[in-house]
Amino acid sequence: MATRTASNDSNMTVYDFPVGPYPTRVRIAIAEKNLQSKIHYEFVDLYKGEHKKTEFIEQKNFSGTLPVLELADGTLIAECTAITQYLDTLDGAPILTGTTPLEQGVIHMMTKRAEIELLDAISVYFHHGTPGLGPLVEVYQNQEWGFRQRDKAIRGMHYFDKVLQQQSYIAGEKFSMADIAVIGGLVFAAIVKLEVPPECKALLSWYERMKMRDSVAQQPAFAK
Amino acid sequence: MATRTASNDSNMTVYDFPVGPYPTRVRIAIAEKNLQSKIHYEFVDLYKGEHKKTEFIEQKNFSGTLPVLELADGTLIAECTAITQYLDTLDGAPILTGTTPLEQGVIHMMTKRAEIELLDAISVYFHHGTPGLGPLVEVYQNQEWGFRQRDKAIRGMHYFDKVLQQQSYIAGEKFSMADIAVIGGLVFAAIVKLEVPPECKALLSWYERMKMRDSVAQQPAFAK
Repeated sequence: MATRTASNDSNMTVYDFPVGPYPTRVRIAIAEKNLQSKIHYEFVDLYKGEHKKTEFIEQKNFSGTLPVLELADGTLIAECTAITQYLDTLDGAPILTGTTPLEQGVIHMMTKRAEIELLDAISVYFHHGTPGLGPLVEVYQNQEWGFRQRDKAIRGMHYFDKVLQQQSYIAGEKFSMADIAVIGGLVFAAIVKLEVPPECKALLSWYERMKMRDSVAQQPAFAK
Repeated sequence: MATRTASNDSNMTVYDFPVGPYPTRVRIAIAEKNLQSKIHYEFVDLYKGEHKKTEFIEQKNFSGTLPVLELADGTLIAECTAITQYLDTLDGAPILTGTTPLEQGVIHMMTKRAEIELLDAISVYFHHGTPGLGPLVEVYQNQEWGFRQRDKAIRGMHYFDKVLQQQSYIAGEKFSMADIAVIGGLVFAAIVKLEVPPECKALLSWYERMKMRDSVAQQPAFAK
């Protein structure tokens, strides 16, 4: 793991793979919260399987995934939703995870749904139905399962299209953590060359709007 | 879907299968929050595949899973974590999802980890590596994937045992939503007859303590 960027102000470390769909979710949350100067990014090379090494699993994240947030005192927070929840509430003024119980409930539901129906499904397709991270990392593949998950993700795109025909954002009329999760899904879709069906006009037009947000446009995943 | 219990006070409906591992999570949360009198349970028969019918998927939960919470105004909240987040913060005094950003982050992480490494893994094993809900509901099975997930769940048990060797509860020194998620995992383990390895003494002794909590002991999943 090599140091990428450091700042004297930084008091949090994010174990990161800059163009990764899941790391991109936390990167967008950091940008939305204007926390960039507080974060030191540490590069973990997914294509070398650094996230599956015993050292990383034992010391950083048992699930062997990125991103992971490490606080100044060594406390580790893995999982995008958990990291976002932490960063968003840190200043007492959440803008991504909701302020009322109803907002919180709906945002958490739609974030999880974006994972189940889109992002995680595409991740399984990538790791099982394509060469994924390469033969050294993908030591077991279940191609049939991978293809099923690809088909599930396409159904998920149609679902989110229907949601966006009725409201401006994934969890209602405000940008939230749930939008970031769907952005993660479409970042991954591009990596595996899974096209959003052209008839999903509401989803495609929402995505164009999302890519114009500063927090999104600045991400390495969107570098031209 | 048949009405099970109703109360004149009840203003929320939970679509429920009383002994199901995921429904048990929300039932425990409801009991911890003393919200029983506010809840009307509506029975959805998983073994008849009622949760996979078009009507349920279109009108209640796109993911076709239980439980789902329906508010008096018809708002639907699916996913155990989202439902728990909503119910726990409703009275402004959360006891399951944390009060500080750090508590919230760690609880959300450990809850998700309980799902990934234990509960969801056993669910996949149940639906793919065993007869599951029967041939009419399990229209596609991938047995090899099911068995892989069973093995993953065993590794998960060892992981949570290690966590509990160091602290009293899954997310630290307080009972939380993360404990409830692991309880859900062990409820599912019993259904599929997946034994907790006897060397996981900390996990087993924590589970005995958990089963003595009122909120847990009263659940149909634990009826003798």
